[in-house]
Amino acid sequence: MKKGLLLVISGPSGAGKGTICKRLLETDEHIKVSVSATTRLPRIGEVEAENYFFIDKNKFLEMKDNNEFLEHAKVYDNYYGTPRQFVIDNINRGDDVLLEIDIDGALQIKDRFEDAVFVFILPPSLKELKNRIVSRGTESKHDIDKRFSLAQGEIRQVIKYDYAVLNDDLVKAIDDIKAIITAEKCKVMRVYEDIKKLI
Amino acid sequence: MKKGLLLVISGPSGAGKGTICKRLLETDEHIKVSVSATTRLPRIGEVEAENYFFIDKNKFLEMKDNNEFLEHAKVYDNYYGTPRQFVIDNINRGDDVLLEIDIDGALQIKDRFEDAVFVFILPPSLKELKNRIVSRGTESKHDIDKRFSLAQGEIRQVIKYDYAVLNDDLVKAIDDIKAIITAEKCKVMRVYEDIKKLI
Repeated sequence: MKKGLLLVISGPSGAGKGTICKRLLETDEHIKVSVSATTRLPRIGEVEAENYFFIDKNKFLEMKDNNEFLEHAKVYDNYYGTPRQFVIDNINRGDDVLLEIDIDGALQIKDRFEDAVFVFILPPSLKELKNRIVSRGTESKHDIDKRFSLAQGEIRQVIKYDYAVLNDDLVKAIDDIKAIITAEKCKVMRVYEDIKKLI
Repeated sequence: MKKGLLLVISGPSGAGKGTICKRLLETDEHIKVSVSATTRLPRIGEVEAENYFFIDKNKFLEMKDNNEFLEHAKVYDNYYGTPRQFVIDNINRGDDVLLEIDIDGALQIKDRFEDAVFVFILPPSLKELKNRIVSRGTESKHDIDKRFSLAQGEIRQVIKYDYAVLNDDLVKAIDDIKAIITAEKCKVMRVYEDIKKLI
């Protein structure tokens, strides 16, 4: 059986990565979402091991010291991290793991999990990106400008990723990501051990 | 418009690369087959610029000296080569070019056309490979053994290719190659110039 992949997905807010990831999970039962560990308390309705692994700060710091996170961050007073073992268990089972994460997190993973595949979701244009940010309608002009300027800076980081998927058509974008998963699994470096058994 | 790709396909005899290439050409009008130049005379029914570009020896050697071939070989008294311009014209038009070629030819191309994608077609097993060679029924035991031993040596060269596609299911193998084409066109290094225009 072929091992699964760790697929790291980033992109500026408004590029539509959330929708893409949701749709990917719905359409393929062998794609699993990565579950983070956090020290923050569960909110009502949140389920252990589904929304998060809820752990205390001592446990988090111990795991961090043991290099058990593929990436981690502190947001205000809470820690968040991606447990390595969860990813490894799934890919060994042949499932692919989807990890939607910001660019800082993605770059940490690059150093710690060399087989991961890095995909950057692009908006069709800056104009459309601004439209999408504005149409959320929840933010002030100042916040919109700030978010837009941040997004432009983020797009420049695409060079650090393996693939760029343009999200001007949701169905096409999802097909592109599925093709990336299929193609990556044909890479000689991933299947060479299997081929050696053939000969 | 996105540029096309040069897809170089090799594999041992009996792996089924001929059938795969034929099917790819039939199912996608934007995949074109590379047309070789040769100094041998046309056979009855062969069409210029469709089967081959028929040229004389002087012209061939002049093109070779001008680095106009992506690869070339001499077989008995005849020269064969892959004209670079034909490939470039098609990929600039947005079409993909399929080039089915032996390993020596593929390795020449690797040095001369860095954007090419190298795909190796694998038989499902050595046993099945032998069956396929035998079932052609046109060869002596000696020839079959020779061809089989050659094929085993060829499979060891897979490490020099980008992708390995297992041909145990023709439909799956073709889907894999289509996924490889789609994924390659999402590679950041191929689309970075377009992205720069976006930002």
